[in-house]
Amino acid sequence: MLLDGKDQARAEAARPQRSPCALGRTRSGGIAHPIAWRLHTWMNVGVCCAAAERSEERATRPKLHVMGVYRDGVKGSPNMANASLTPCIPYNEGKGARPRVGLTIALISSSQILAILYDGGKAAQEEPRLLGTVENQLGIREYLESHGHEFIVSSSKEGPESHFQQHLKDAEVLITTPFHPGYLTRDLIQKAPHLKLCITAGVGSDHIDLNAAVDHKIQVLEVSGSNVVSVAEHVVMSILLLVRNFVPAHEMIERGDWQVSQIARHAFDLENKVVGTIGAGRIGYRVLQRLVPFDCKELLYYDYAPLPAAAAKAINVRRVEDLKEFVSQCDVVTVNCPLHEGTRGLVNAELLQHFKKGAWLVNTARGAICDKDAVAAALTSGQLSGYAGDVWNVQPAPRDHVWRTMKNPLGGGNGMVPHYSGTTLDAQARYANGVRSILKNYFEGTPQDPVNVIVGESGYATKALTLVKDKLRGWPGRAHLDMIRVTLTRPFVTVSFIISLTQPSPSNA
Amino acid sequence: MLLDGKDQARAEAARPQRSPCALGRTRSGGIAHPIAWRLHTWMNVGVCCAAAERSEERATRPKLHVMGVYRDGVKGSPNMANASLTPCIPYNEGKGARPRVGLTIALISSSQILAILYDGGKAAQEEPRLLGTVENQLGIREYLESHGHEFIVSSSKEGPESHFQQHLKDAEVLITTPFHPGYLTRDLIQKAPHLKLCITAGVGSDHIDLNAAVDHKIQVLEVSGSNVVSVAEHVVMSILLLVRNFVPAHEMIERGDWQVSQIARHAFDLENKVVGTIGAGRIGYRVLQRLVPFDCKELLYYDYAPLPAAAAKAINVRRVEDLKEFVSQCDVVTVNCPLHEGTRGLVNAELLQHFKKGAWLVNTARGAICDKDAVAAALTSGQLSGYAGDVWNVQPAPRDHVWRTMKNPLGGGNGMVPHYSGTTLDAQARYANGVRSILKNYFEGTPQDPVNVIVGESGYATKALTLVKDKLRGWPGRAHLDMIRVTLTRPFVTVSFIISLTQPSPSNA
Repeated sequence: MLLDGKDQARAEAARPQRSPCALGRTRSGGIAHPIAWRLHTWMNVGVCCAAAERSEERATRPKLHVMGVYRDGVKGSPNMANASLTPCIPYNEGKGARPRVGLTIALISSSQILAILYDGGKAAQEEPRLLGTVENQLGIREYLESHGHEFIVSSSKEGPESHFQQHLKDAEVLITTPFHPGYLTRDLIQKAPHLKLCITAGVGSDHIDLNAAVDHKIQVLEVSGSNVVSVAEHVVMSILLLVRNFVPAHEMIERGDWQVSQIARHAFDLENKVVGTIGAGRIGYRVLQRLVPFDCKELLYYDYAPLPAAAAKAINVRRVEDLKEFVSQCDVVTVNCPLHEGTRGLVNAELLQHFKKGAWLVNTARGAICDKDAVAAALTSGQLSGYAGDVWNVQPAPRDHVWRTMKNPLGGGNGMVPHYSGTTLDAQARYANGVRSILKNYFEGTPQDPVNVIVGESGYATKALTLVKDKLRGWPGRAHLDMIRVTLTRPFVTVSFIISLTQPSPSNA
Repeated sequence: MLLDGKDQARAEAARPQRSPCALGRTRSGGIAHPIAWRLHTWMNVGVCCAAAERSEERATRPKLHVMGVYRDGVKGSPNMANASLTPCIPYNEGKGARPRVGLTIALISSSQILAILYDGGKAAQEEPRLLGTVENQLGIREYLESHGHEFIVSSSKEGPESHFQQHLKDAEVLITTPFHPGYLTRDLIQKAPHLKLCITAGVGSDHIDLNAAVDHKIQVLEVSGSNVVSVAEHVVMSILLLVRNFVPAHEMIERGDWQVSQIARHAFDLENKVVGTIGAGRIGYRVLQRLVPFDCKELLYYDYAPLPAAAAKAINVRRVEDLKEFVSQCDVVTVNCPLHEGTRGLVNAELLQHFKKGAWLVNTARGAICDKDAVAAALTSGQLSGYAGDVWNVQPAPRDHVWRTMKNPLGGGNGMVPHYSGTTLDAQARYANGVRSILKNYFEGTPQDPVNVIVGESGYATKALTLVKDKLRGWPGRAHLDMIRVTLTRPFVTVSFIISLTQPSPSNA
C-alpha cells in the first residue's frame, strides 16, 4: 500500500497519542536521512513518507513501518515520486501543544535478497504449493517487494558467470536450499561485501563455509524443524522397501511378469532386525522413534554425544561407541549426521568390510558421507544387500552416476531417488514460512528463534569459537579449527568443531 | 526309524512302568486292528509293530507312536514285511505280575498329503529358505516321509487335469497358500472323499468354501500369526511410498534424469494425514500400531465389531460406523479385512466417489475386495492419488492386468507388486514351522492351537453354525448362511456369517 502526503496526514491525525519518530530532517525538500539517501542514490530506490511509529513498549528500538516502494518511476502511484520528497507534515502533539513541523519518514530499507532455488518448470506453474522453486519463489516475493526489497531468484549457480556469483556481490541476504545448493565458499564470501545473512530454506548448511561466515560476521540460519520429520519418514520408507525388496517386485509387475519366488528369496521383515543410526540428532532420533513399534531386535546409535538418559530410555536405544563394532551389529545402518571433515567418506571400503554380510544401508544425510565407489562395489558384491537415499556427492547427480543403476547380485537393492525427501509439499510450506519469519525478524530487528541459528549475530558460534581459540592459545604446535554445527536444544547449546592439531616435536614438548 | 520285533521287545523292556495300549489282537498273525487292516489293504501300506503307548495323563486318548513305514516292499528294512505281522510280544507288567501276551501295535497311518505351492525355480534351488516353494516343500518332506506319509507337491492347480484336482481325490490333507491359491470349491470337496484337513500355509482361507468344509467335516486351519506382521509392514511401506511419491522418483533416477520439482509436486508427509483401516483385526490393528509415532492427524477404523476399549485407547484410534463417512474423512485408506460375499467389490465406483479427492488406497487383503476397473478409473482421473498392494482378483495376474500399469495424471501412484508381502523369508520360516506343528498335532491327536482353527473338528465353527441355523429355524422366508471366518482371540471366539434372508411377503408376515 502506498500513501501520499494527504493519506499520511489523515493517518497521523487518527492516532494523536503516538509520537512520530523523527529519523531525519529535510533541507529544502531533500532526503536528509543518510540511509534513505544511500538507498536513493545507490540502489535507485525512492523512499516514501509515512508514519515511522515507535511503539511505547519498545522505545529503545524504533520499528519502521515500510509502506511502499517507488523504483525507477515504474512501480507505485505516480505522485510517490514527489511524496518521497515532501518535507514536513504539520500536526498537533496532544491537547494544547504548539504545532510543530517535523519530518516523519519511513525508510524503504531496500535490501537485495538473492535466492538460489531449483527450477520447477511446468510442475511449478501447475502446482503453486511447490514453493521452493524458482517459479514460486518461496511465496515471499510479494511480501519482500511490498517492503521495498529487491528479490532476485535464480537456479543458475555454477561458475563465475552464474547468477549466483554475479548477484552475490550486491546481495545482503542469500537464500539457498540443500536440494540445489549454492556452495558459498570463503572465496565467494570475500567477494560479497554486503552479505549479512544466509538462510537455508530447509535443514543442513554444509554448503556454507561456517568459519568464513563467522569471520565476516555473516549470520547463518536454517528453518530448523522444517523437514526433519519429512526426512525421518523417508528413512523409514527406505529401510522398509530395501528390507522387503520392493523395487524389483514393482518392476516385475510393470514388465508383465509374476515370479513370487524371485522376489521372496530376498524379502525379509523388519521385525527382529537390528537397526542402527549414525547420528542420533533431530532426524536420527525421529527415525528411531518411528521404528519402535516395528519390534526390531534392537535399536542402536553411534554419536559423538550420548543421548539424554530419558530420551534413550523412551525408545530403548543402546549406544555403541566404536563405529566398527556398531556397524558389525546392525542389519540396517542409517546415516543421519551432518557432513563435515570428520564425516566425509566415513562409510568407506574399510568400514564396509565391518558391516554384516548382506546389510542394508540408507543415507539421506549427505552423499559425500558415503564413498561413492566403495558403496557401489559393496552392493555389487553382495556385501550390502541394498542402498537407498536421496543425497549424492554431486547434485544434480550426473547421468552416469554409478548410484543410479548399481544393483545387488540378485538385481535389486537400489532405492535411490533425487534429493527431495525434505522438500515434500508439507515441508515446503514449513520452510517457506520459516524463511519469511527469519526475514521478518531480520528486517524488524526482532531476535531470531535460537533453534534456527547456526551462526548468530554475535552469538553462540562466535562465543564458542573464541572460547576454543582461547583454550588452544597455549598449544605449542599448529592448530586449525573447523566449526561444523550449532545445535540448540533448549536449554543446551552444542557447538561442534573439528580441531586439527600439529603435534609439537618431542624436543618442543 | 524302523523297528523290527527284537528292537521293539528291547524298547518295551526298557520301560516296564508303562502299559501297552492294546488296540487289537491278532488271529493267526493277521492284522486285527480295523484301521491297520484298512490301511494295509486299501493303501497298500504295511504296518509295523511297535509300542503304542498310552500316557497316564491322557488315558482317554491313545497316542500312537508311529515308528516307521513299510510300503510296496520298497521302503524300510526287508524284515518289516514280516515284522508288521508279528502277533504278540510277551512282557512283564511290573514286579510280580503274571506275564501276559498281547498285541501292541503302532499304525503306519500313512496319509496322502497334497501341497499346492508356487514354483521357486532357480531362486528356490539357490535359496533353501524359500520354504514355500514346490522345490523346498515347506521343509517337511523328510518329516512326513519318516512318518510314513505320502507327500505330493505341485504348482499345477487349474482345471480338471491339474495335479491339484487329480490328487485331491486321494488326499487326506491339503496344504495351500494364499500366494498361489488352490481354489477348493464345494464341487471339488465333494470329489475328495478322504479329505480331512486343509492347512493354509499363511493367513487367509477364502480360497476354501468354509461352509462346504463344515458340511463335510473337514477341518480348516491356518498358521495364524505367521505373516500378520509381514503384511502390516508391507502396508506401512506402501502408505509411505505412495504418500511420498517414491516410485516416479526412483524411475527418474534410473533413466538418468533429475527434476526434483516433478517429484516434489506430488510428495507429501504422512505426518498430519488421516489414515483409516477397513478392518481392525490382526493385520489392521498392527498397521495402526506401527503408525502411532508418525503423528498422523487421526487414526480411524471401520469394522463390524468395535475394538476392545483398551486396545482402541492404546493407539488412540476412532471408529467410524458408516463406511462412506469413514472414507470421506481419510487421506489414506488401507484394506485389512477378509474376503467374503460381504466384502467382495466393497471398494467400488460408488464408494470411491466418497473418498477425499486425491486420497491414497492400499490393499494387501484380497484383490477382489476392490473393483479392478473402478480403482483403475479413479487413479487415472486423479480421484485416487495412488493405489498399492500385492493382491489381485486373479493370481497370477494376467500380463495385461490394468493394475500393472495404471497411473495417476502425474504418471505416478502405482505401488503394485506380486503377492508376496506375507511370504518373506522370515514369514516362510514361521508358516513352514506352523504347518509342521499342525500336521504333528493332527497325526498325534493333540489338540490344535485354537488361534489356528478356522473350521474345527467339531468345534467353534460347527457349533456356531448349528446355533445360527437353530435361531433361523422360525424364519418364514428362505435363509442362506455363509460362514466367513472364525477368529480366536482368547478368551473370545468370533464366528462371522453372511446371512442372506428372503423377505417373507407381507401376507406371510
